[in-house]
Amino acid sequence: MKALVYLGLGSKRIEDRPKPELKAAGDAIVKLSKTTICGTDLHILKGDVATCAPGRILGHEGTGIIDSVGVGVTGFRPGDRVLISCISSCGKCDYCRRGMYSHCLTGGWILGNEIDGTQAEYVRTPHADTSLYRIPDGADEEAIVMLSDILPTGFECGVLNGKVAPGSTVAIVGAGPIGLATLLTAQFYSPAEIIMIDLDDNRLEVARRFGATKTVNSGSENASQRVKAMTDGRGVDVAIEAVGIPATFLLCQDIVAPGGIIANIGVHGSKVDLHLERLWSQNIAITTRLVDTVSTPMLLKTVQSRKIDPKLLITHRFKFDQLMDAYETFGNAAKTKALKVLISA
Amino acid sequence: MKALVYLGLGSKRIEDRPKPELKAAGDAIVKLSKTTICGTDLHILKGDVATCAPGRILGHEGTGIIDSVGVGVTGFRPGDRVLISCISSCGKCDYCRRGMYSHCLTGGWILGNEIDGTQAEYVRTPHADTSLYRIPDGADEEAIVMLSDILPTGFECGVLNGKVAPGSTVAIVGAGPIGLATLLTAQFYSPAEIIMIDLDDNRLEVARRFGATKTVNSGSENASQRVKAMTDGRGVDVAIEAVGIPATFLLCQDIVAPGGIIANIGVHGSKVDLHLERLWSQNIAITTRLVDTVSTPMLLKTVQSRKIDPKLLITHRFKFDQLMDAYETFGNAAKTKALKVLISA
Amino acid sequence: MKALVYLGLGSKRIEDRPKPELKAAGDAIVKLSKTTICGTDLHILKGDVATCAPGRILGHEGTGIIDSVGVGVTGFRPGDRVLISCISSCGKCDYCRRGMYSHCLTGGWILGNEIDGTQAEYVRTPHADTSLYRIPDGADEEAIVMLSDILPTGFECGVLNGKVAPGSTVAIVGAGPIGLATLLTAQFYSPAEIIMIDLDDNRLEVARRFGATKTVNSGSENASQRVKAMTDGRGVDVAIEAVGIPATFLLCQDIVAPGGIIANIGVHGSKVDLHLERLWSQNIAITTRLVDTVSTPMLLKTVQSRKIDPKLLITHRFKFDQLMDAYETFGNAAKTKALKVLISA
Amino acid sequence: MKALVYLGLGSKRIEDRPKPELKAAGDAIVKLSKTTICGTDLHILKGDVATCAPGRILGHEGTGIIDSVGVGVTGFRPGDRVLISCISSCGKCDYCRRGMYSHCLTGGWILGNEIDGTQAEYVRTPHADTSLYRIPDGADEEAIVMLSDILPTGFECGVLNGKVAPGSTVAIVGAGPIGLATLLTAQFYSPAEIIMIDLDDNRLEVARRFGATKTVNSGSENASQRVKAMTDGRGVDVAIEAVGIPATFLLCQDIVAPGGIIANIGVHGSKVDLHLERLWSQNIAITTRLVDTVSTPMLLKTVQSRKIDPKLLITHRFKFDQLMDAYETFGNAAKTKALKVLISA
Repeated sequence: MKALVYLGLGSKRIEDRPKPELKAAGDAIVKLSKTTICGTDLHILKGDVATCAPGRILGHEGTGIIDSVGVGVTGFRPGDRVLISCISSCGKCDYCRRGMYSHCLTGGWILGNEIDGTQAEYVRTPHADTSLYRIPDGADEEAIVMLSDILPTGFECGVLNGKVAPGSTVAIVGAGPIGLATLLTAQFYSPAEIIMIDLDDNRLEVARRFGATKTVNSGSENASQRVKAMTDGRGVDVAIEAVGIPATFLLCQDIVAPGGIIANIGVHGSKVDLHLERLWSQNIAITTRLVDTVSTPMLLKTVQSRKIDPKLLITHRFKFDQLMDAYETFGNAAKTKALKVLISA
Repeated sequence: MKALVYLGLGSKRIEDRPKPELKAAGDAIVKLSKTTICGTDLHILKGDVATCAPGRILGHEGTGIIDSVGVGVTGFRPGDRVLISCISSCGKCDYCRRGMYSHCLTGGWILGNEIDGTQAEYVRTPHADTSLYRIPDGADEEAIVMLSDILPTGFECGVLNGKVAPGSTVAIVGAGPIGLATLLTAQFYSPAEIIMIDLDDNRLEVARRFGATKTVNSGSENASQRVKAMTDGRGVDVAIEAVGIPATFLLCQDIVAPGGIIANIGVHGSKVDLHLERLWSQNIAITTRLVDTVSTPMLLKTVQSRKIDPKLLITHRFKFDQLMDAYETFGNAAKTKALKVLISA
Repeated sequence: MKALVYLGLGSKRIEDRPKPELKAAGDAIVKLSKTTICGTDLHILKGDVATCAPGRILGHEGTGIIDSVGVGVTGFRPGDRVLISCISSCGKCDYCRRGMYSHCLTGGWILGNEIDGTQAEYVRTPHADTSLYRIPDGADEEAIVMLSDILPTGFECGVLNGKVAPGSTVAIVGAGPIGLATLLTAQFYSPAEIIMIDLDDNRLEVARRFGATKTVNSGSENASQRVKAMTDGRGVDVAIEAVGIPATFLLCQDIVAPGGIIANIGVHGSKVDLHLERLWSQNIAITTRLVDTVSTPMLLKTVQSRKIDPKLLITHRFKFDQLMDAYETFGNAAKTKALKVLISA
Repeated sequence: MKALVYLGLGSKRIEDRPKPELKAAGDAIVKLSKTTICGTDLHILKGDVATCAPGRILGHEGTGIIDSVGVGVTGFRPGDRVLISCISSCGKCDYCRRGMYSHCLTGGWILGNEIDGTQAEYVRTPHADTSLYRIPDGADEEAIVMLSDILPTGFECGVLNGKVAPGSTVAIVGAGPIGLATLLTAQFYSPAEIIMIDLDDNRLEVARRFGATKTVNSGSENASQRVKAMTDGRGVDVAIEAVGIPATFLLCQDIVAPGGIIANIGVHGSKVDLHLERLWSQNIAITTRLVDTVSTPMLLKTVQSRKIDPKLLITHRFKFDQLMDAYETFGNAAKTKALKVLISA
């Protein structure tokens, strides 16, 4: 089969690989129908992800059709249409029992990282019963594939951890794909204001179309002062960090109101300053999270009932044999204005 | 009347002052029967508290008898025995409505800070109806005065914010009065382990008497390694910071397990490093809080029903005219082994 | 001044009454600009409300302008535009501290019940600081007056108690004004399905316009079977009772799924059967509540940010001197199709 | 092997049966070392449990040693000492994912009910990975076997559902084994008062030894009036029903305070009256639950850390060949004063 393989720092290509085989009783083999590319795939290519060795097939998102299942799999059979979660979960360990699938002792984020991933014609998925989700009849797979990673990430790490609520004032720092997925899912809870902050006017324009009530270009304005002005000097109830650098985490500290929450989504590469000399008395909470994908069943319901349209995030479409082009487009988002690129078999 | 007055950096004395008078409809004048000294009073004397001007009567803890009440006070009358909360709360503003009395727009921590305090024969208490608590008949005032500040602080900022639960593993960094108050109130929730960490073997010995299941002297041992060894390498569910310096906050980051909480109590004077490059994916929460004293009614019930004995914290007793000696004893805790000093009228 | 006075069983008229005067330090006198009629007012006229004596001015909803305030009132001054909550709350007693304003020891539902109400030119409101809410500049008073009672009732007793959540399946039994207010506020949480059940096709048609995804006429269909069929035999996550008779409460028991919640809003006049022989093992919760109006500040924000349009509930408009006509219209809702009638000064 | 077999209404005997064999990939065969008898076993013998057919080996509690495991079992191997949960949980279905193991689509309470149980030398346990729990080294199996059913039942259905909290006032109606297990686990949360209500003075005496702060004999006193008198007329925050008849459920309605919770544990055989004509406005919640045993890992920790001593519940001990005597003793508890009877291999 064809597969997109990571070859080491900055290098990748499409290779011929043998079709994967069942290894454990709980495995399934899935024939991919849709996949996409994540910012994390670019991080791997930059050499930022030590757990991902050269030779690895990339990709942790996708939908497809069950090709075969191990003897321990009870929930799926060949021919079933499924969504593949970016997180593999055994459903048995202490972490899985507590809903922390991201820290599953034999799973977590392993697809396209520690084991071969979904940017291929077939993929082996461990713990299939608790890591795959049946696609409802009539559902649009283009929308569903957004539920592998980006939607639950924005929702769980940003919206749920941030406790977005009716009437609350939310700021999302970063209007990239993750920030925009957060914006879409934040609206499940009818906050009064969602202030979107980014350096890129194009993305802020997209954010307004997606439901942001206010936008701030932090390149041309003092974002902290602007947000304070927009909130009668009080700050926001929820500040969601969707970038992953010290400056944006600092901005969140500046704009969070007493009693508020800073919900971190960003993948950080270095330590940050925490201004406890000011914040110790401000009754705030700071949360971090690697997506657990515990919300996937709920997100499937909201997509089916049309409370959200995840296809809004898709800007470009490719066929599987154009995967190198898809990376080119996704990797030059500033120029191509790409958000999510969809790759179909 | 006699009162302990802050005179500026490092200086205080007992002065004669006029008895305070009612100023607002919601005020009460309370004749003090018991008071105590807080670590924050020492901070004021070191010049760390900019809001407290020279000439201020210190003290924000105490019990006493209502002397007079303003026309708007409906819950108390002269002669009532009351506990004075360290936090004044109007009960009306948005923050008070949300239980964040610490950020009351016309209250918060003002006693012995922005207005004259309780280390005096009489004190004027604003917002009396919502800042004083009736002392139950037969209650021991020595125990009750510990509910002005130290018990709700340990309980709200450490135990409640830390979500201490039956079976959980808790570490408390700092075995001073606040850390020990946290230790006492943590036991309301029957955690499986409470690991107490401090530099002072005497305080660790006290901690064991107060219910710590394990202790670590972070001066003579590598505390992070010891805690990891005590928890099968996993770390603790709840790490409570009760010191207020970068090193102890860093230790909390080292020992918190995935999915755990760092509950900060310490008053910090400088920023700290937050290692988001490691913690971003660990599903943790960090909380800060200035005590709200919303738990005071509950704490009164637990004292009355003997679920806790706050008098354990009292190591020394003085009469009011020995207040300068009381400060001397409390200020040299390493030598005197003082925890809380009780001052009686 | 003119006022609508309850004269005993089935009888009311507009009388001349003296303008009310301040009695307590916390009182305000409000000049009414808008008021409305509640189903509870009709209950009083039927003699169902023992606490309401003949001679009482009716009405517990309204907006107006502060005419005068007592010496203890700090949050309002004459000329302020305010919303009057149907619940008076002292903000000081144990119940108020816990957010249970409905059980305030010196308040609760007293307006137009134990003291004179809002269907008059002026009203005295006790505990003004914690029972009135400032109307934001530019706000539409017609929308705001719906926040005195009906919106917080549907939201707190139905939506909050029912824990409506994104993706959940909700049934609301009863499409009268309260059921429809519940329907409007349930959408704050983006449930996947809202099934509206009533006997009246007109009200079900209104429900569909207001956002119900499915409707069931329980007169012409077996509602329990229909709801089961709509939910793959499972039942609903949340069943909200908005009628107040045994048959509708029984229906809720029939349609609630294992793990679900029955949130009662209805005012019941007799006991009901609870089928514990079946439900004891179904992991359900049943909740009751008299509205506390703790959500009023949040609801004001959602109205201001246009997340909800409470004016949808207003079907008829009257001037104050037409109050008897307004009662006539509201009391014959089956014929007039009245939901809420708005009365303006 | 020997096994205690249900033969139909009122009849049981010890029979020779073949040793069970693995049927599914997730099964384990466990050699029993300890078991006990539950009130539910008596219900089966009375013919109250329609799902349990004659010929069934009874028993759903026990500890033992793994004899063999299916190919899909990853967490256990032969020789492991394990606790058998009364609830079998697949860990995969929607209910299991939500922590409602009691409603597992292929599990729930099936042991000794729909499939053969634990009152035998060996038992087949389905879904072994998520229905068995490793017994910590050094743990006392006599204490651990109380965690199969009675402790999680009292804790989850009574204490957790009732939201017992520090300082709260709790009444437990019924001082049988389940009521006493509730009493023991309620103390994890340091309530101020636990009032135990029963008809049997002996059991009330046991309750006082186990930590009840007050007791009421509802045969010789008006329990409702007594509880009201004990609570200044207010009632209790939490009323826990641990009997299962209309009279005791009615008592809970009488004694619950506004804002309180009625947590039902009792297995009810008939409908009960719910006095909504009084309770509709009282802001109460009523909860029901079949134990999920989600708290088993936590309970194991509290037993290991000596926060609770479940062996207090054991009054009689038997060897396996005395099982008929054990039933005799347990079935005549009024005379024998039996709480839990322990049966050892």
